[in-house]
Amino acid sequence: MTVTSTPVAARVSRLGTETAFAVSAEAAVWQAQGHTVYPFHLGDMNLPTPENIVEAAFRAIRDGKTGYCPPAGVMPLREALAADISASHGIDYGPLNVALEPGGKPVIGKFILALMDPGDEVLYPSPGYPIYESQIEFHGGVALPYGYVEGEKSFALDFEALEAQVSPRTRLLIFNNLQNPTGAESSPAELERLADFVVRHDLFVLCDEAYWDIRYSGASRSLASMPGVETQSVILYTFSKKFAMTGWRLGAAVGPAPIIDVIAKLNVNDESCANHFVQYGALEGLTGDQTGPREIVRILKERRDACVGLLNQIPGVSCFTPEATFYLFPNVSELMARKGLATYDELRRAALEETGVSFCTRLHFGRALPGEKESYVRFAYSGISMPLIEEGLGRLKAWAAA
Amino acid sequence: MTVTSTPVAARVSRLGTETAFAVSAEAAVWQAQGHTVYPFHLGDMNLPTPENIVEAAFRAIRDGKTGYCPPAGVMPLREALAADISASHGIDYGPLNVALEPGGKPVIGKFILALMDPGDEVLYPSPGYPIYESQIEFHGGVALPYGYVEGEKSFALDFEALEAQVSPRTRLLIFNNLQNPTGAESSPAELERLADFVVRHDLFVLCDEAYWDIRYSGASRSLASMPGVETQSVILYTFSKKFAMTGWRLGAAVGPAPIIDVIAKLNVNDESCANHFVQYGALEGLTGDQTGPREIVRILKERRDACVGLLNQIPGVSCFTPEATFYLFPNVSELMARKGLATYDELRRAALEETGVSFCTRLHFGRALPGEKESYVRFAYSGISMPLIEEGLGRLKAWAAA
Repeated sequence: MTVTSTPVAARVSRLGTETAFAVSAEAAVWQAQGHTVYPFHLGDMNLPTPENIVEAAFRAIRDGKTGYCPPAGVMPLREALAADISASHGIDYGPLNVALEPGGKPVIGKFILALMDPGDEVLYPSPGYPIYESQIEFHGGVALPYGYVEGEKSFALDFEALEAQVSPRTRLLIFNNLQNPTGAESSPAELERLADFVVRHDLFVLCDEAYWDIRYSGASRSLASMPGVETQSVILYTFSKKFAMTGWRLGAAVGPAPIIDVIAKLNVNDESCANHFVQYGALEGLTGDQTGPREIVRILKERRDACVGLLNQIPGVSCFTPEATFYLFPNVSELMARKGLATYDELRRAALEETGVSFCTRLHFGRALPGEKESYVRFAYSGISMPLIEEGLGRLKAWAAA
Repeated sequence: MTVTSTPVAARVSRLGTETAFAVSAEAAVWQAQGHTVYPFHLGDMNLPTPENIVEAAFRAIRDGKTGYCPPAGVMPLREALAADISASHGIDYGPLNVALEPGGKPVIGKFILALMDPGDEVLYPSPGYPIYESQIEFHGGVALPYGYVEGEKSFALDFEALEAQVSPRTRLLIFNNLQNPTGAESSPAELERLADFVVRHDLFVLCDEAYWDIRYSGASRSLASMPGVETQSVILYTFSKKFAMTGWRLGAAVGPAPIIDVIAKLNVNDESCANHFVQYGALEGLTGDQTGPREIVRILKERRDACVGLLNQIPGVSCFTPEATFYLFPNVSELMARKGLATYDELRRAALEETGVSFCTRLHFGRALPGEKESYVRFAYSGISMPLIEEGLGRLKAWAAA
């Protein structure tokens, strides 16, 4: 039963997706044909959720937390998350500043529905998480991409692009510090300059901080903590990465109460509430024993070190060492020239078929921007363990050198 | 930290809510003051999720189903639900006709986003679930309410209202057979007449069948099963009621594959996927031992019989005996006249303060329609056990008779 004559709504033609799913599908087909695949394309994690969180969720089911809960979430978790983010951000959040969501992703769409009128311009990163652009355009906004420039030791925000594109019609900025896919992290000076930009143009900001706690040295810093920005920001928080809970689907919007109220009202309309007992698992994650999340970061750091080291040994590849996220964004321009590969898709397919190494490219994170000359791919090390990292990148090196 | 100067988007002024939450809040305040409350206002259930479902979800966590799953859900559950609905509806659904959602509610908004352009008219029931009207208006549609008329033994669709309102701009019909709040169920003849209406006006239909399996005699029938309608319908399915899983948040959209593809693409954008391991709990619910759901219906039937019997003993109250849902929608016009109460709110507050009995009224399910003369309230018996039902309705009777 598949026939339908009904045309879908016009807005559907503006709905984007995550094209990375196609990479997963291709890798699966290749694997099903009997080949070894080294899955650097996955944004998912191959680590178990810490046991104390699992146990707490079990207990909550036994305690009858199987009915609806309030649309913005259960109060103990709203309080605990407000306390956690207040401490890490130096902002005084309370429970009314927090709305729990079935994942971090719902915060993107709800932020846009709550704050963007059709025709409003929204600045968003490219390369970046492709859902930003999709949600902006789906709901009738004008998506203005800004990029990153490759520095000596890291990527830096392209302020020229930001200044060139901003206009009186620009209403919102989406900013993903600790960035997917680049791993980029703003210095204090860069954050200050960005805060000045935000205040000067009276923007409201979505601070996507999905990778806040996935860091290997130093401390994460937030644009939302900058003077003048804190009352103009919604933070996207997620339990997915820190606690290896991606499939549990729990995240939160954190920001000024009037905006959180609108987001909670969207919760009433869109899904009633996030899963009730999962929230008690998350509460244990935030307030209980921290061995689990520490172990997750330890494992990821080991993988990062191995990946960065091995990638930089590959002829024609150069890769920064991000202190956060589980992504690497190596420059592969020379490798492509060496191997006579003209397009990202040629590179990706050649690597898969010659070595089994599977990864996403810059184009899975938005269209190339005008003047973009260098070529990059994204290696995620959250879903691949050490022996396969070493074996896969060894094969990639041999292929590149051949 | 609550200050913000940023005005929200214009569409937020058109966003509705469930005003029944305010009834819950008032009841909670009354209870906190030391009074007994008889909670007939709750749409939630005070029954535990069947043990085999809980166990299956536990096992799924242990089996590592804690990462992302495909946006439309895991294949075994899509297959099982397609088989279940094919058998009950006499339509040949396959897994590609099913998209799992974090609850039944997300299907309403996604149906509207996928199929309604701004300015399109959408027919929806009033009294009815208030989220229909909210989502239609929020996304720029024109909401056209149709009502029910009180017959001898049940409520019947008001075809006059449907015919009077439909126009060439009318694109969608939202239909909730086994209805919240009225408990109304269409006869085969009524379904045939509605199918003719749908075909004649070339409408696409959302069949909200949230209460399909909560029935006490006979068999549920679907508008989607009528000739000419099956390819023009999306069914809203939920695991919430049948399996007492309201707080687990799992439902599904079931319909023509091209529409389900759009809804799955909305899943990619809105929440990635529904909780992974919960889907294995639901799979056990559909395919495993059926003692749990049978026991849930048995308990609810006992409550229904008690409620209907007791309500009809109350002077000035008359109540049908619906064979499905866990709602009753008694006519209280005479009671209000008897007690000299002019408004629904006076009735509700008097009943709460004089007897502790808490319920929603017709106005929690939409504005009164032109010409609407009789007065109704909604008694839900899903969240209140037998002793309290008897005690509460006994008090209500004594108050009414005084």
